[in-house]
Amino acid sequence: MTKTLILNGPNLNLLGQRQPEIYGAQTLADVEEACTALAADLDLGDVTCKQSNHEGALVDAIQDARGRQDAIVINPGAYSHTSIAILDALNAFDGKVVEVHISNIHQREAFRHHSHVSARADAVIAGLGTEGYLAALRWLARRG
Amino acid sequence: MTKTLILNGPNLNLLGQRQPEIYGAQTLADVEEACTALAADLDLGDVTCKQSNHEGALVDAIQDARGRQDAIVINPGAYSHTSIAILDALNAFDGKVVEVHISNIHQREAFRHHSHVSARADAVIAGLGTEGYLAALRWLARRG
Amino acid sequence: MTKTLILNGPNLNLLGQRQPEIYGAQTLADVEEACTALAADLDLGDVTCKQSNHEGALVDAIQDARGRQDAIVINPGAYSHTSIAILDALNAFDGKVVEVHISNIHQREAFRHHSHVSARADAVIAGLGTEGYLAALRWLARRG
Amino acid sequence: MTKTLILNGPNLNLLGQRQPEIYGAQTLADVEEACTALAADLDLGDVTCKQSNHEGALVDAIQDARGRQDAIVINPGAYSHTSIAILDALNAFDGKVVEVHISNIHQREAFRHHSHVSARADAVIAGLGTEGYLAALRWLARRG
Amino acid sequence: MTKTLILNGPNLNLLGQRQPEIYGAQTLADVEEACTALAADLDLGDVTCKQSNHEGALVDAIQDARGRQDAIVINPGAYSHTSIAILDALNAFDGKVVEVHISNIHQREAFRHHSHVSARADAVIAGLGTEGYLAALRWLARRG
Amino acid sequence: MTKTLILNGPNLNLLGQRQPEIYGAQTLADVEEACTALAADLDLGDVTCKQSNHEGALVDAIQDARGRQDAIVINPGAYSHTSIAILDALNAFDGKVVEVHISNIHQREAFRHHSHVSARADAVIAGLGTEGYLAALRWLARRG
Amino acid sequence: MTKTLILNGPNLNLLGQRQPEIYGAQTLADVEEACTALAADLDLGDVTCKQSNHEGALVDAIQDARGRQDAIVINPGAYSHTSIAILDALNAFDGKVVEVHISNIHQREAFRHHSHVSARADAVIAGLGTEGYLAALRWLARRG
Amino acid sequence: MTKTLILNGPNLNLLGQRQPEIYGAQTLADVEEACTALAADLDLGDVTCKQSNHEGALVDAIQDARGRQDAIVINPGAYSHTSIAILDALNAFDGKVVEVHISNIHQREAFRHHSHVSARADAVIAGLGTEGYLAALRWLARRG
Amino acid sequence: MTKTLILNGPNLNLLGQRQPEIYGAQTLADVEEACTALAADLDLGDVTCKQSNHEGALVDAIQDARGRQDAIVINPGAYSHTSIAILDALNAFDGKVVEVHISNIHQREAFRHHSHVSARADAVIAGLGTEGYLAALRWLARRG
Amino acid sequence: MTKTLILNGPNLNLLGQRQPEIYGAQTLADVEEACTALAADLDLGDVTCKQSNHEGALVDAIQDARGRQDAIVINPGAYSHTSIAILDALNAFDGKVVEVHISNIHQREAFRHHSHVSARADAVIAGLGTEGYLAALRWLARRG
Amino acid sequence: MTKTLILNGPNLNLLGQRQPEIYGAQTLADVEEACTALAADLDLGDVTCKQSNHEGALVDAIQDARGRQDAIVINPGAYSHTSIAILDALNAFDGKVVEVHISNIHQREAFRHHSHVSARADAVIAGLGTEGYLAALRWLARRG
Amino acid sequence: MTKTLILNGPNLNLLGQRQPEIYGAQTLADVEEACTALAADLDLGDVTCKQSNHEGALVDAIQDARGRQDAIVINPGAYSHTSIAILDALNAFDGKVVEVHISNIHQREAFRHHSHVSARADAVIAGLGTEGYLAALRWLARRG
Repeated sequence: MTKTLILNGPNLNLLGQRQPEIYGAQTLADVEEACTALAADLDLGDVTCKQSNHEGALVDAIQDARGRQDAIVINPGAYSHTSIAILDALNAFDGKVVEVHISNIHQREAFRHHSHVSARADAVIAGLGTEGYLAALRWLARRG
Repeated sequence: MTKTLILNGPNLNLLGQRQPEIYGAQTLADVEEACTALAADLDLGDVTCKQSNHEGALVDAIQDARGRQDAIVINPGAYSHTSIAILDALNAFDGKVVEVHISNIHQREAFRHHSHVSARADAVIAGLGTEGYLAALRWLARRG
Repeated sequence: MTKTLILNGPNLNLLGQRQPEIYGAQTLADVEEACTALAADLDLGDVTCKQSNHEGALVDAIQDARGRQDAIVINPGAYSHTSIAILDALNAFDGKVVEVHISNIHQREAFRHHSHVSARADAVIAGLGTEGYLAALRWLARRG
Repeated sequence: MTKTLILNGPNLNLLGQRQPEIYGAQTLADVEEACTALAADLDLGDVTCKQSNHEGALVDAIQDARGRQDAIVINPGAYSHTSIAILDALNAFDGKVVEVHISNIHQREAFRHHSHVSARADAVIAGLGTEGYLAALRWLARRG
Repeated sequence: MTKTLILNGPNLNLLGQRQPEIYGAQTLADVEEACTALAADLDLGDVTCKQSNHEGALVDAIQDARGRQDAIVINPGAYSHTSIAILDALNAFDGKVVEVHISNIHQREAFRHHSHVSARADAVIAGLGTEGYLAALRWLARRG
Repeated sequence: MTKTLILNGPNLNLLGQRQPEIYGAQTLADVEEACTALAADLDLGDVTCKQSNHEGALVDAIQDARGRQDAIVINPGAYSHTSIAILDALNAFDGKVVEVHISNIHQREAFRHHSHVSARADAVIAGLGTEGYLAALRWLARRG
Repeated sequence: MTKTLILNGPNLNLLGQRQPEIYGAQTLADVEEACTALAADLDLGDVTCKQSNHEGALVDAIQDARGRQDAIVINPGAYSHTSIAILDALNAFDGKVVEVHISNIHQREAFRHHSHVSARADAVIAGLGTEGYLAALRWLARRG
Repeated sequence: MTKTLILNGPNLNLLGQRQPEIYGAQTLADVEEACTALAADLDLGDVTCKQSNHEGALVDAIQDARGRQDAIVINPGAYSHTSIAILDALNAFDGKVVEVHISNIHQREAFRHHSHVSARADAVIAGLGTEGYLAALRWLARRG
Repeated sequence: MTKTLILNGPNLNLLGQRQPEIYGAQTLADVEEACTALAADLDLGDVTCKQSNHEGALVDAIQDARGRQDAIVINPGAYSHTSIAILDALNAFDGKVVEVHISNIHQREAFRHHSHVSARADAVIAGLGTEGYLAALRWLARRG
Repeated sequence: MTKTLILNGPNLNLLGQRQPEIYGAQTLADVEEACTALAADLDLGDVTCKQSNHEGALVDAIQDARGRQDAIVINPGAYSHTSIAILDALNAFDGKVVEVHISNIHQREAFRHHSHVSARADAVIAGLGTEGYLAALRWLARRG
Repeated sequence: MTKTLILNGPNLNLLGQRQPEIYGAQTLADVEEACTALAADLDLGDVTCKQSNHEGALVDAIQDARGRQDAIVINPGAYSHTSIAILDALNAFDGKVVEVHISNIHQREAFRHHSHVSARADAVIAGLGTEGYLAALRWLARRG
Repeated sequence: MTKTLILNGPNLNLLGQRQPEIYGAQTLADVEEACTALAADLDLGDVTCKQSNHEGALVDAIQDARGRQDAIVINPGAYSHTSIAILDALNAFDGKVVEVHISNIHQREAFRHHSHVSARADAVIAGLGTEGYLAALRWLARRG
C-alpha cells in the first residue's frame, strides 16, 4: 500500500477557470476526484489532497507527510521555480516524489524552465494535462 | 465605474516609519485615505485596500478580486523581484493592472531592477513617491 | 514656478502614425498641446517642447536647459537604451527629471528593458500612454 | 486510430546493459514489446519501433513518419541536448509528439538539463524509467 | 542589556530529525534552551525564540521586533537565498543582526552560496553547527 | 515599380579609400552609379542614394522614405550594432528592407556579429562586396 | 570556369512542403534546376547538387569536393548552428564558399543566430528565399 | 612636425561647470589654450581643437583629419563606451591616436570601464585630469 | 594484453593534406602503421584502427568495442566539442580511454577549448602531434 | 588536546593601522595574545601564530602543519578570493579548518564574496571582528 | 617634496630583453635612471626603485612605503589582473598612486583588460611605453 | 642536446603523500629520478629539477632558464589556473614548453579546467599520472 499526498501549489485552485487554453477545463476538484478513483482502482492506498497558495503552507504539508504518507505527487506551480524551502522539505521526506506540471513548462517563458523541485523528484511529468497526475499514480502503483 | 483594489506587499505597512529618506513620511493609512478620497472625486467606484507581508495572502487577494474588481493597483514590494506566483495570479485577473513603486527601483540594488509583475502590468510607475498611487487611479478613471 | 522642458527623442515625431496599437493615436502636437494646457491649469510655469532624432541634439537641448529650466520631462525613445551621453548631460542638470515611456517597455524586447536614463531620473513612468506626460507634470506641480 | 512511431536515439540500443542503476534492466526489445502489447490493449493503432545512433537517420525516420504516422514517442538520448536538426524535422511533422527520458535528466549533469526537442514536444516525461513510454501511449490513446 | 530574538526559518523545526549528518542531532528545542541558558549566564537580557516555515511570518516577526528587541540572531534557512522581503524587514530594524547557518553553505549546492540576508547582517557564521547560535550570543554580549 | 532608397551609414563615404583589403576599391559614387544603372536595366523604378555619418540623419532619411519609397537597401555600417533608433525608424516603414554589409561581419570582431537592423530586415547580405547592393536590387525587382 | 557544388543540409529535402510561410513553395528539385539553368546562362561551369540529413555525409561531400570543385554554395540548415565538423571540412577546401539561408535566421530563435560556417564562408546570404542560391552563383560568376 | 587634432566629445564643453569634483575647474577653453601653448613650446606643429556633442560630427572631424593631421588626441566622453562608428573612423586614420579621459574611468560605473576607442588608440591616459592632454602632446612630441 | 581500438573522428582522414602547419605531414595511414608497429614492440596486443566522419558511426564503433577491446585511443576531432552521444557511448565502455588531439586545442578558437569526451577519458594528450597516439599506447602498455 | 595554528594572510600585519572603521583597532599582536590566552583557559593545547604576505609562504606553513597541528584557524585575507594553491594545501591537511574574516565580506566588493578556502573549511566566520578568532578556538575546544 | 616609490612587478626585470616589439628596447635600469634624473629636474624629491617577481614582496614594499613615501608609481605587470592583495596594500597607503602599463593593455588578450589596481589608482597610463613612468612623475610634480 | 628544466609548482612536493587516489604513490624525488634516468637513456641532455610553492620563485626559475635551458617541462599545479605572471615568464622563454598535469584536470572542479599556461605550452598532457613527465621528455627527445 502506498499512501499518497496530492499536493498542489499556488493558483491551481483556479484550474478550469484560468487560461483554459493552457491548463484545460477540468477543475481541481475534478482532478482530485479522478485521482481518488484511480487510486481505488489500483489498490494504491489512501489519497490525501491539499492545495495552498502559501509557500509556507506547502512546506508544512510536506513536513506533515513525513511518517504518514508513502509518496507525494506535487505540482508546485510557480513555486517550482523559486522555492528552495519546498525542496528542503521534500529532502526531509523519505518516500517517492513525482513532480507534475499540467503544461509543458519548457515551451513557456524562460523563467519557467528550471524547477528546484526536479533536483529531488524521482520523476517529472510535464504537458500531459491533468492526466499527468494519473500517470504519476500508475507509476507509484507499479512500484508499490 | 471601475472598482479598484489597492494591494500593498511586504513591509509597506511600515510606510512612514521605515527609511523615510527613501519612502517618505506618509503612512499606509494616509495613502489609502488619499486614494479613497481621490477615487470619490473622480467618481471612479469603490476602492478596497489590503496589505500583507505574505506572498500567499497576496495571491489569495488577487484571486478574490476576480469578478469583483475592475482594476488592481499593486505595489508588490520585495515580491516584485521574486514572485512568479503573484504574476500568475495577476495573469488570471481580467482587469487593468498598474504596478506602483514608491522609490525609483532602477536607482537601487541590481536585484531590484527586474520585476516579474511588469510582464503583466499595463503600466508601471516608479519614483513618484506615494503620489504614484494617485496617478494610477487618475489613469484608471480616464479609461473607465 | 517650475519651468519645464518636454523633450522627446527619436521617432516620437511619428506619434499617432507609427504602430498605433503600441503608441496610441495622438500626435506629438496633441501631446505637447495637452501638456501646455495642463501646465497652465496647474500654474506650473512655462512649458517648452522639443523633439529630435539626433542624440547630439538632445544633449544640446539638455545642456541649454541648465539654468533656464527647473525640470525636464524626457522620453528618450530608443536612446534610453543606448545613450550614456544623454545620461551625462542630465547629470549636469540640477533640476527634477521625469522619464516617460508611452508603452510598458518591460513587456517588449529585452533590449528595451534597461534605460541608462533611469539611473538619473527622479521618477519613471511607463505604459500610461501619452497620459504619462501629464502625470509627470502633475507630480512636478505638487513639488514646485 | 493513432499510428505511432517509437523512436529511440543513440545508445538506447544498449538499454539493460549500460548503467543499469540509471537506466534499469529492461532491454530495448523488452520496451518495444511492451509498447506494442499496450497499444494493442488500448486499440491505439500500429506501433512502429526504430532506433539509431545516427542523428541523420533519426531525421530521416521523422521525415518518413510525415503522412504515415499520427504520433511520435521519441527518446532522443544525447541528441536531445545538441540536435536542432531533429527539432526541425519534428517541426515538419503534424502529429502529436511525446518526449521520453528514462532517467530524470534534471538530476544529472548540467548539459543534460536542456532539450531542444522540448520546444516542440507536446509533453515531456522524465524519470519514470521505461514506463515513460507506456505513459506516453496511454496519453495518446485518450486523445485519439 | 541586549534583548534578543532568535528567529529560525523553514524546516529548522525538523532539526535533529532531518539529515543529521548535515544538521546534527540537537532538536530546535535543545538549541533554544541552550541559547536561553547562555544568555542568562552572560547577563545578556531576555531571549525570545520563534520559528516559522512562512516567509511572511518571518517578516512579521522581524517587524514586531522593532522597538522591542535589541538584536536578532537569524537562521533564515532556505529563505536566505530567495527572500528580499526578509532583507527589507531587517533593513527596517535598527539593532544588531547575526546570520547563522548550521552547515557550511559554501560547500553545498551553488544556489545556497548566496544569501540576501548577508547584505544586512553585521556578521555571518556558517558551519559551526548549533554552536553558531551561541557564538552569536557571546558576540552580542561583548558588544552590549 | 519599386522606388528604392539606397542608404549608407557612417564611414561608407570613405569606400575605396579605407581598408581596401576589407572593403574593396570601388568608391561610394561608383556603387551608387552601378545601382542606378542596374535599377534602370531592371525597370525597378527610381533609386535615391543618401549617406550620412549621423545616426539621427539616417533616422530622418528613413522617416522621409515613408510613403515616398517602396524599399530601402541599407548598409547601416557601425550603427548596425548599436542603433535601436534606426531599427525603430525602419519598424515605422512599410516597404521591403534589405540589409547589406560589404564584408562578412561574422568573420570580424565579436561586436560586429549582431545587428539590431537584422531583426527588421527582410533579408541580410554580407560579404558579397559592393555586389551585395546589386543582389539586393535584383531581389527587389523580382518581387516588385 | 568555376565548377560549383550546391550542398544542402538537413530537412532541406522537404523544401516546398515544410513551413511554406517561412521557406516558400519551391521544392529542392526546383531550386537545383534553377541553379543549373542559371549556371549555364552565366557560363559558370558544371553545377553538382547534393543534399543529406547526415552531418557526416555533408563532411564527406565537402571532402570529395577538394580538387574537384572550385566553389561550394552551402545551406547547412540546422547544422549551421551545431557543426564544427562541417566547418573543419570547409577549412580544408581551398575554393570560394557562399553560405545561404532561405529565411532571415536573425529573426528566428536565438539559437539560430550564430552559424559556425560563417567563420569560414566568404559571404553569407539570408532571407532572399531560394533566390539566395542564384545570388551566390552570380557572385561566383563575376569573380570566376 | 606633428600636426595634431584635439577632439573632445559630448558634454566636455561643460568642463569646469559640470561635477568639478570629478572633472576639475578648468574650462575647455583653458585646456585648449594650454594645449596650444605647450605645442608651441614643444615645436610640435599646429594644434586644431574641436568639440561636439554629436557622434556623427566627431566621425566627420576624424575623417577630415585624414591627410591633414598627423595625430589625434581624443577624449570621446560618453561615446567611448558606445560608438563603433568613431572607432571605425579612427581605423581609417593613419596617424597616432591618444585617448584621454579626465577622470579614472575604471573607478566609476561599470559601463564606463570599456572603451571601443582603446582597441585603436596607441595609448590611453585616464585620471590625470586635464593634464592628460598635455601628457599626450609631450609623448607625441618625443616620437615626432 | 591490452587490445586497443584507435578511433579517429571527422576530417582526420585528411591528415597530412589539411593545414599541415597545424596537423603535420603524416597521413592517417602513417599514424596507424606507427601505432601498430609500436604496439607490437610493446607486446600490447592487437590494435584495430577506424576512422569516420559520422558521429553515429563513431558511436557504433565504441559500442562494438564493448567486450572486444581493452582500451580506446580516441581523437574525436570536431565532435570532441559537440557530441554528448560519443561521451555516452564511452561511458558504456569499461576499459581505459585516452583522448588525443594532434594540436594544442587550448591555443585555438575558444569553441575548441572544451571537450565533452574529457569528462570520461582517463587521460588527455594535446599538442604532441601524431606522437600523441604513441604516448597513449606507451601509457596503456605500462598499465596493462 | 588540539594543537592549533593561527595563520593570517596578506596585510593582516597592518591590523589596527589599516582602515580601522572596517578592521577595528586591535593589532595582530593583540589578537594573537588573546588567542593564546583563551587557548590556555580552554585547555585547548598549544597555539602557534604566523602571518605572511606571501601566498607561497602560507602554502609552506600549511604544509608544515601536517602531522604537527590538529587544527588551523586561517584568515587568508585577499588570497581567499584568488588562491587555489592555499586550497590545495589545506586539502592535504587532515585536521579541522576554520576560516575567519574580520569584516563581513558579503557586504564589500563583489570580488570579495567568493572564497576558494570555504570549499575546504569546516566552518566560516565573518564579521565578528577579531572575536571571530576566539569563536573559532571555542568551537575547536568543544570538539577536541 | 614628493618622495616616490617606483615599483615594478613580475617580468619587468626583463625589460628590453622580452618581446621588444611590445615593450621597447629600454632596460629597467634605463627606466629607473631616467625616472631619477627627471625627479631631480622636477625637484620632486627622492625616488626609490624596486622590482620583484613575487606578489608578496610587492605587498611588503607597498607596506614599507607607508609613512615613508608620498607617492607610488606602480606597474604591477601580470599581477594587475590577479592580485587583490596588492590592491589591499595600496588601500592601506595614504599617498598618490599612479598605475603605469608600458603597452596598451586594452589591445591585448581579454584577461589583461581588467586591473584590480585601477580601482585604487588615482590615474592610469597605458601604451606610452616607458615614457609612462615619466608622465606619472610630471603629474606628481605638478600636484606636489 | 636538449637541456631541460623540470619545474613543479605548489604542493607537488607532497607527491605521494597527498590524495594518493588522485596523484599516485610516487614521491617527487621518485619522479625527478625517473626523469633524470630517462633523459640519460634518451641522450637528451642535462635535466634540472626545481619545485616551489611560491609563484614568484617559479617566475624566477623560468627567467633563469632563458639562455640556459632548451626546454621546460612544467607542472604549474594550482598556479595553472591563476597565474598570468608564469605565463608571461614562459612567453619570454624561447624553447619548447610542455605542460604536465598528473590528474585529468578536466574531470575535477570547474576552476581547474582552464590553464593560463596552455596558451603558451607547445603541448599539454593530463591524466597520465607521473608518466606524463616521461612522455614529455620522449617527445622532446624526438624533436631534439
